Amino acid sequence: MNIILASTSTLFGGNYFEYLQHEIAELFTGIDEIIFIPFARPGGISHEDYTNTARTFFAKLNIKVKGLHEFEDKIGAINSAQGFFTGGGNTFLLVKTLHEENLMTLLKENVEKGKPYLGSSAGSNIGGLNMKTTNDMPIVYPSSFDTMGLVPFNINPHYLDANPDLKHNGETRETRIKEFLTQNDTKVIGLREGNWIRKVGSKITVEGNQLTRIFEKNKEPYEIEAGNEL
Amino acid sequence: MNIILASTSTLFGGNYFEYLQHEIAELFTGIDEIIFIPFARPGGISHEDYTNTARTFFAKLNIKVKGLHEFEDKIGAINSAQGFFTGGGNTFLLVKTLHEENLMTLLKENVEKGKPYLGSSAGSNIGGLNMKTTNDMPIVYPSSFDTMGLVPFNINPHYLDANPDLKHNGETRETRIKEFLTQNDTKVIGLREGNWIRKVGSKITVEGNQLTRIFEKNKEPYEIEAGNEL
Repeated sequence: MNIILASTSTLFGGNYFEYLQHEIAELFTGIDEIIFIPFARPGGISHEDYTNTARTFFAKLNIKVKGLHEFEDKIGAINSAQGFFTGGGNTFLLVKTLHEENLMTLLKENVEKGKPYLGSSAGSNIGGLNMKTTNDMPIVYPSSFDTMGLVPFNINPHYLDANPDLKHNGETRETRIKEFLTQNDTKVIGLREGNWIRKVGSKITVEGNQLTRIFEKNKEPYEIEAGNEL
Repeated sequence: MNIILASTSTLFGGNYFEYLQHEIAELFTGIDEIIFIPFARPGGISHEDYTNTARTFFAKLNIKVKGLHEFEDKIGAINSAQGFFTGGGNTFLLVKTLHEENLMTLLKENVEKGKPYLGSSAGSNIGGLNMKTTNDMPIVYPSSFDTMGLVPFNINPHYLDANPDLKHNGETRETRIKEFLTQNDTKVIGLREGNWIRKVGSKITVEGNQLTRIFEKNKEPYEIEAGNEL
């Protein structure tokens, strides 16, 4: 496998994928066209507008982008594609659409054959075992929470440390992930913005300029440094 | 109907339901025992421990509390109850459990007969039409997102304004609710901590010391003051 699962597309104050441009170019070496999966539709943006955002970025790498929504035969499109990028937005909407169109398993099989895959945020969530550690609001009801399982754990993108100044009693991210672990025995990678997971062959590492927080059942959460295997 | 749907049980720096004690006493006037529904299990706390938290508070009002988990015949228990309180925690876990045990519709029918109902956080979410505007993490997969519909809209408890100082690209609460409205034509009440919804008969008002933010499809969000009808 050859994949990048990024916490976010855009760092605070930065431009779209500016911080990850070098690694994305390397991921898609030798490839001149990819399929963009726009179904997460951040803020309800149209599939076309969202694809154009990806298109503008990938033009810098001389890679053409086709939106998966453009194809009548989506199954054929995925089977013929050279590589994939799934953008962020709402994970429930993304997962519902992929299951409805019977594309989740197909996409997994294509990535497992070695076609490069880039995910960010919701697009990274679907690289995990299931979407039960998304931060998103359940605005639609998917037929299943299962995702591709390209990596043998779950991802929490945009991982955010508790803010001790906040006078608010909503749950912290850590509380939510610990609640998940009371119901599931699945490792969760708290991926801070600026970090990403890289899988080459069967080797999985965490990369970026932040520490990464790991949550496992019946263990205290712990932090690992970039470059370490997951 | 005679219900209170509160944003939270506990204000920052306050004690459990301290801010709402007077209104809760009024809601349960003439009642000496209620059933507590502990299924949301905040932080994975046991049903028994969670029920004890409620029990300690209601002892001040001379109201006995039985946990719904204590009954083998839960349907009989709900049908014989004088009133109900559903505590907060994880909405997915609460809704999954209520549907699995065929209690969602039964609870709704009992509340519609006039038995007083108190909800806080997840317990308020289930008073809305569905749970699609919860803030919680989808740690388990419920058989449906539909809830009781005691009020003809959805609730977003712990409503939180965007923090302009936060250097983070996760979605704001407002962005999430607007995403919900791209997929659903359902009014959403953004209930800030310290506020609650009161329904007496068919009259529904918002109460508390904060403004309440209302979201409707194809409209700019707007704020209403306490005492106004919803």
